[in-house]
Amino acid sequence: MLSRTIDQLLKTEPTHHQVKVRGWVRSFRSNRFIALSDGSTIKTLQCVVDFENFDDELLRKVSIGAAVEVVGMLVESQGQGQTVEVQVSKLTVLGEAHPDDVKLTILSPKRHSLETLREQAHLRIRTNTFGAVMRTRSKLAFAINEYFHKNGFFYMHSPIITGSDAEGAGEMFRVSALDLKNIPLDENGNVNYKEDFFGKETNLTVSGQLEAESYAMALGKVYTFGPTFRAENSNTSRHLAEFWMIEPEVAFNDLDANMDLAEDFIKYVIKFALDNCDDDLEFLENRLIEEEKNKPQDQRSEMKLRDKLRFVLENNFKRVSYTEAIDILKNSAPNKKKKFKYIIEEWGADLQSEHERYLVEKHFKSPVILFDYPATIKAFYMRLNDDGKTVRAMDVLFPGIGEIVGGSQREERYDVLLEKMRAMNIDEKELYWYLDLRKFGTAVHSGFGLGFERLVQFTTGMGNIRDVIPYPRTPGNADF
Amino acid sequence: MLSRTIDQLLKTEPTHHQVKVRGWVRSFRSNRFIALSDGSTIKTLQCVVDFENFDDELLRKVSIGAAVEVVGMLVESQGQGQTVEVQVSKLTVLGEAHPDDVKLTILSPKRHSLETLREQAHLRIRTNTFGAVMRTRSKLAFAINEYFHKNGFFYMHSPIITGSDAEGAGEMFRVSALDLKNIPLDENGNVNYKEDFFGKETNLTVSGQLEAESYAMALGKVYTFGPTFRAENSNTSRHLAEFWMIEPEVAFNDLDANMDLAEDFIKYVIKFALDNCDDDLEFLENRLIEEEKNKPQDQRSEMKLRDKLRFVLENNFKRVSYTEAIDILKNSAPNKKKKFKYIIEEWGADLQSEHERYLVEKHFKSPVILFDYPATIKAFYMRLNDDGKTVRAMDVLFPGIGEIVGGSQREERYDVLLEKMRAMNIDEKELYWYLDLRKFGTAVHSGFGLGFERLVQFTTGMGNIRDVIPYPRTPGNADF
Repeated sequence: MLSRTIDQLLKTEPTHHQVKVRGWVRSFRSNRFIALSDGSTIKTLQCVVDFENFDDELLRKVSIGAAVEVVGMLVESQGQGQTVEVQVSKLTVLGEAHPDDVKLTILSPKRHSLETLREQAHLRIRTNTFGAVMRTRSKLAFAINEYFHKNGFFYMHSPIITGSDAEGAGEMFRVSALDLKNIPLDENGNVNYKEDFFGKETNLTVSGQLEAESYAMALGKVYTFGPTFRAENSNTSRHLAEFWMIEPEVAFNDLDANMDLAEDFIKYVIKFALDNCDDDLEFLENRLIEEEKNKPQDQRSEMKLRDKLRFVLENNFKRVSYTEAIDILKNSAPNKKKKFKYIIEEWGADLQSEHERYLVEKHFKSPVILFDYPATIKAFYMRLNDDGKTVRAMDVLFPGIGEIVGGSQREERYDVLLEKMRAMNIDEKELYWYLDLRKFGTAVHSGFGLGFERLVQFTTGMGNIRDVIPYPRTPGNADF
Repeated sequence: MLSRTIDQLLKTEPTHHQVKVRGWVRSFRSNRFIALSDGSTIKTLQCVVDFENFDDELLRKVSIGAAVEVVGMLVESQGQGQTVEVQVSKLTVLGEAHPDDVKLTILSPKRHSLETLREQAHLRIRTNTFGAVMRTRSKLAFAINEYFHKNGFFYMHSPIITGSDAEGAGEMFRVSALDLKNIPLDENGNVNYKEDFFGKETNLTVSGQLEAESYAMALGKVYTFGPTFRAENSNTSRHLAEFWMIEPEVAFNDLDANMDLAEDFIKYVIKFALDNCDDDLEFLENRLIEEEKNKPQDQRSEMKLRDKLRFVLENNFKRVSYTEAIDILKNSAPNKKKKFKYIIEEWGADLQSEHERYLVEKHFKSPVILFDYPATIKAFYMRLNDDGKTVRAMDVLFPGIGEIVGGSQREERYDVLLEKMRAMNIDEKELYWYLDLRKFGTAVHSGFGLGFERLVQFTTGMGNIRDVIPYPRTPGNADF
């Protein structure tokens, strides 16, 4: 007897063979039609019960959320929107679900706010919205690994616990096995980390880039894909304290090759989602349209979800230098009319989300890659240009979300890097190993970081980053 | 002009076209033959330099470890063991490497101990051994994701920072943003975690299983693949404080289906390595033979590395109940002759590595799956058998390393689980959400955990777990 997932069954021809299917009840109409979900797809399998042949007591247990096993014939469906259905000959309730439990109301057709569902993160995954988001998230993750595998990259697990706090990408969480009630102090009254597990102060990583560079300088093309952390007290819809990041790093790539890689990579994974998640994306597209009905016309998305994804595939990312971008912004209507919150006065200004979105959505009407930023607003490891004032940095800007990728060509010259580190107060003793990479067979190399949740948000159209990761960690929230 | 990796070039026919290759010098013989590596393969590309046509000063810079770019004709090779070579017309030294620097001696043909290399974890990846290990590690990681993707599993990122310390799988690291010099205390003199970032005590996860269960009960088939942590002071060749774990979890799978999955999964990824990492595995096989030459005959591996991998593919994993295993062990020669460190006296004993290896290597001479362990030595969430004293646990035991997989059918009955939690002092308030999974549409489900580094050790033949992860974290060591 076939035991297949519903996703597989819905793609088969009606066989008139017996099948066994297990899943959860999504609805039970007319004491006859069970819509069964097993999570493999957003679609349900119609299971037709001849109620005359089944015990009333059994049928009463077939309620929303109950786990059941059905055995029956797979036949052509009489109903609309489905090709096959199961004529149930045997029905077993594996686990009941009491329909009056308040927690179960999240499965009822009535719409619940995403905020309410967030408090039930262990059950929200049973709703259509979160099923669709998390299946898409999984497919995107696979596409990422597949892209790099096909292109000769090696997956590198950079360390999560780091003894280095020199990366400067953000505030860090401390990791310790000390008893916090009895912190050992040294003779100067400072915490004596020598007594801690690692014999030194340790934190959760904010980026695997520096370690990835060390591997790129041996294996050529590498990438990381792992969790990173920020201890910043940002309670916004764009920030998480724990999020997943993808960081490719390639020896011998200059900034142009880095931009090529970023564009090719992003297009690959978005195409993969369009090709492999159509049912889920269709649902999410309609969800977004419903959600935006409550918004004023001018705040609604200009494009439907899948149109926006195709728009990214079909357009070249416009490459614009920071200097050009500043000129455009200085002369833009919102700048002149002081509609921007941060008015662009002169070269050297750090760009805000409002500026990035203006460039993408109003001016160029395409994804944009900005490059060659002022050295003063970028990290110490970025390659200094010959002008002495800009660095080979790049940011990829997307409609709706602004920056989705940040990267750079790395400073490969030992002397220049050392000077930069000293000027920026980066501890050269701690990063001796990073400097070593420039001592032995140094070479031009580049890489970038892409926040995975931002990509999932863009692909699924979810407005709040907390709704695209299973168990979000934010200030005041580490439940489950 | 073709710009290809060395791995690609070595697989092409000689084209008599110009190619450009960039990499690092592995050797430079007779002022004429550069062996060039770019990390894409363990093999080097022979680049032939007509030294008469090049500047002496340039050639002097072509030393081991230097980064160079060569341009030239790809032609049939005259040398042995390679089909193509490059007749160099243009040679550029991108980054020099001073051959007298002591750190560079790790690249010299002289063998260095793995301990020495560990102190240079940022440079050891440039050696053949670590290149081979880390390329194989990357391929195994891809095979894992591919296996689950092909089989309809969804990749789920379980949280790293967890508010739960109830899992009981091991000692945990604390995560905090508090100032350790000024720990806030509450009125009872305890640490006031309400003032910490998450408003509660938080730790690094020891397992994603419980959260994976919540997703399996909605999406059906899921897996995690992420870092996990143990704050145990184990300075052994088998333990890391930070390691990667794979945890599949499947709704409606009983223990038999769980064993089928584990066996099928492991065979798939090992076959993938044999099919895709042959050059690296051949090198590692020879390395192991060299290493074991220093050992007494009876401590050497009985099989060569790749033979051992094929042995796993070609044998069914022997399924043996714990009760049968105890009988075998009680009557075994090493038990009777008191050669075991821990003598097996009676049913209920916890098995040690020596017992597991005896069963695999001496008695059954095949991988073994032990199942139905005494409830008293296993975790609270394992499904109780009808005998009331054993649980549906399973361990997969491998030659050389012992346990590689631990898993179970999970207790799906609310009342039984609650009773077990109370008996084992598991906080039911904290795990309310885990109990909820048994309230609404509960069903039989199963899963297991596989320590990724153990798998990499088994596949590469490396004896110390610190040599199969880029930057190992162990007591007293969080460098880089």
